[in-house]
Amino acid sequence: MKALPRTLGFAALGLTTLAMSANADTIETRWANVAVETVAEGLEHPWGIAFLGNGRMLVTERAGHMRIVEADGTLGEPISGLPEIKVMRQGGLMDVTLSPNYSSDRTIYFSYSEPESAGSEVTSTAVARARLDGNALHDVEVIFSQYPKEDGGRHYGGRLKFSADGEYLFIGLGDRGHREDDSQLVSNHTGTLIRIYPDGSVPSDNPFVDQDGALPEIWSYGHRNIQGMDIQPSTGHLWAVEHGPQGGDELNRPEAGLNYGWPVITHGEQYGGGQVGIGFKQEGMELPVWHWTPSIAVSGMAFYQGNQFPAWQGNVLATGLRGTQVARLEVDGDRVIHQEVMELSDRIREIKVDSDGYIYLLTDHPNGKILRLAPANAS
Amino acid sequence: MKALPRTLGFAALGLTTLAMSANADTIETRWANVAVETVAEGLEHPWGIAFLGNGRMLVTERAGHMRIVEADGTLGEPISGLPEIKVMRQGGLMDVTLSPNYSSDRTIYFSYSEPESAGSEVTSTAVARARLDGNALHDVEVIFSQYPKEDGGRHYGGRLKFSADGEYLFIGLGDRGHREDDSQLVSNHTGTLIRIYPDGSVPSDNPFVDQDGALPEIWSYGHRNIQGMDIQPSTGHLWAVEHGPQGGDELNRPEAGLNYGWPVITHGEQYGGGQVGIGFKQEGMELPVWHWTPSIAVSGMAFYQGNQFPAWQGNVLATGLRGTQVARLEVDGDRVIHQEVMELSDRIREIKVDSDGYIYLLTDHPNGKILRLAPANAS
Repeated sequence: MKALPRTLGFAALGLTTLAMSANADTIETRWANVAVETVAEGLEHPWGIAFLGNGRMLVTERAGHMRIVEADGTLGEPISGLPEIKVMRQGGLMDVTLSPNYSSDRTIYFSYSEPESAGSEVTSTAVARARLDGNALHDVEVIFSQYPKEDGGRHYGGRLKFSADGEYLFIGLGDRGHREDDSQLVSNHTGTLIRIYPDGSVPSDNPFVDQDGALPEIWSYGHRNIQGMDIQPSTGHLWAVEHGPQGGDELNRPEAGLNYGWPVITHGEQYGGGQVGIGFKQEGMELPVWHWTPSIAVSGMAFYQGNQFPAWQGNVLATGLRGTQVARLEVDGDRVIHQEVMELSDRIREIKVDSDGYIYLLTDHPNGKILRLAPANAS
Repeated sequence: MKALPRTLGFAALGLTTLAMSANADTIETRWANVAVETVAEGLEHPWGIAFLGNGRMLVTERAGHMRIVEADGTLGEPISGLPEIKVMRQGGLMDVTLSPNYSSDRTIYFSYSEPESAGSEVTSTAVARARLDGNALHDVEVIFSQYPKEDGGRHYGGRLKFSADGEYLFIGLGDRGHREDDSQLVSNHTGTLIRIYPDGSVPSDNPFVDQDGALPEIWSYGHRNIQGMDIQPSTGHLWAVEHGPQGGDELNRPEAGLNYGWPVITHGEQYGGGQVGIGFKQEGMELPVWHWTPSIAVSGMAFYQGNQFPAWQGNVLATGLRGTQVARLEVDGDRVIHQEVMELSDRIREIKVDSDGYIYLLTDHPNGKILRLAPANAS
């Protein structure tokens, strides 16, 4: 007799695309019933989202567009002034985040696949900043470009997050799919987490600033493909999720100068079979805070804080692409002490919590949606 | 649309009782295929098991008997010489463990429901030691008796474990079902973990030895009902599992003098509804290392070490009564970083790993069994 693997949590819901609030689906969870509302649709692989206030949102589409989405779900025209973006496989326009001083400087930061020359398939994950004025970007300035440029169109990373004090910008990167071993080196940006000032300059307390041959922008290394990041409210620490191979998606709390093990330690298997890595602790390499094995193809993550789901305060919410879900992890310091999974029927790319405590999800489809999670009995 | 809660892991197997090895059921897991073999049956609510060598086992039945089970599954006659045991509801004969020097002293330790007077329903969880000679106990000596005695027949705790160095005996207790608030006090044994020398005397470094009004046997407190305990091989630390109410079964690493929160902090609900406790961290109270919510009615636990399942080295294995399962938790230091569940169809009372790395389970039924987990491709 054989048993088939099954995922923790709740039966898949077969969510259908419905007008916001009108016919919201409901997920029952331990501490809250959750309404899943559709806020907007018609976005081409939406990847990043930032809240502009009054319900307006700034959204990127991997296909190379950035738009303002109104509170009623109306999509604006594409914002003009983006640099050249190489849209290919996993690459294109990726994340967007607002300057910590956005209300005064109107500056946004965004990540994208930057070609070596016009049309080239050799690209970097790059980060630019620009001033958003109406529906146009001005004064676009590239503040970071991953070294070296690579072909292949995979594992760009691309997630952006400012530190708790707004002083530093973190950039999550990947191994570009065929440079696994380079993730163990600090002489290139492959498979690293970057920490820079918002103007692209390097903080003097970065861990490899004084090491010969090391790139000073690097904060931590040994990452395969960082896809989600957020700041833990209670500590101000950055946490990050990254894709493992078929198994071994990781939640990490990257600390300065530490090695997160890829591809030496991982719980995963290479696509198509064959074990990768040893899966156990090694001197000088960190184990994750949590791992998902088999892989859910983890994507976004956010710490919950807000008034809509009071029992979830401080929990990690992490989303899956293949595993169409929101995983809710209860956290005590740097330990996960419980997991509960809310299953959806869409691939989820990103998750963000707004200042009112509502949760926004981006679905990863050619006709992608913005979903909103709200208490079921309040909608 | 509503989704029903579902448990992590693997489909239930509908295990049937079959002769050992002959028709073992198989559970597929991430790192191993596991054969579930029936070693013995006909035990009345087996509760504790100790390995005597050469495949022989010493097994307790809650109904008040202790027997030797031969390697071929043959049950011996009840061992004579037990003290009076009050068999009532959750109480009766509970755990058994061998002296660290058993090969020379032939001494065993066992826990049981000790009546105030013959036939009384007012009982303590007591621990006695005795010399096992053939099929009889001699020189029975009570080394511990929980204060105060209580009626009600619930939450006896009862699990026994020697420290890594064999110097100390830990005794897991419970709140006796209707003395919840006493679990916050160290002036009684209710809801505590006990640490004594094997002769019942109190170690001078116990945390409350010098505190007026405190009982010096107490190691930690605020426990609801400790059901399983084992020593982490890599650290020598004792870990324990305890029953929460409907939710909030806990895995803890009890440290000297600390308060594990019951009934002030818990993730659970009172049976029949109504939330108990606040579910969040409080100053001076420890959160668990892991919790199961909804409750699996956690019972035994063991750290895996051995040669049969090499990928599980150092993992916590915890069993459930209502949740008929073995939960496998991957551990890094004091953090759980992954859970995988093997679902069975029997209520499981206890789990032990033998020196060869085979895993033994006791099923909690009037016709209880000893099951053995072995690699599927080796049987």
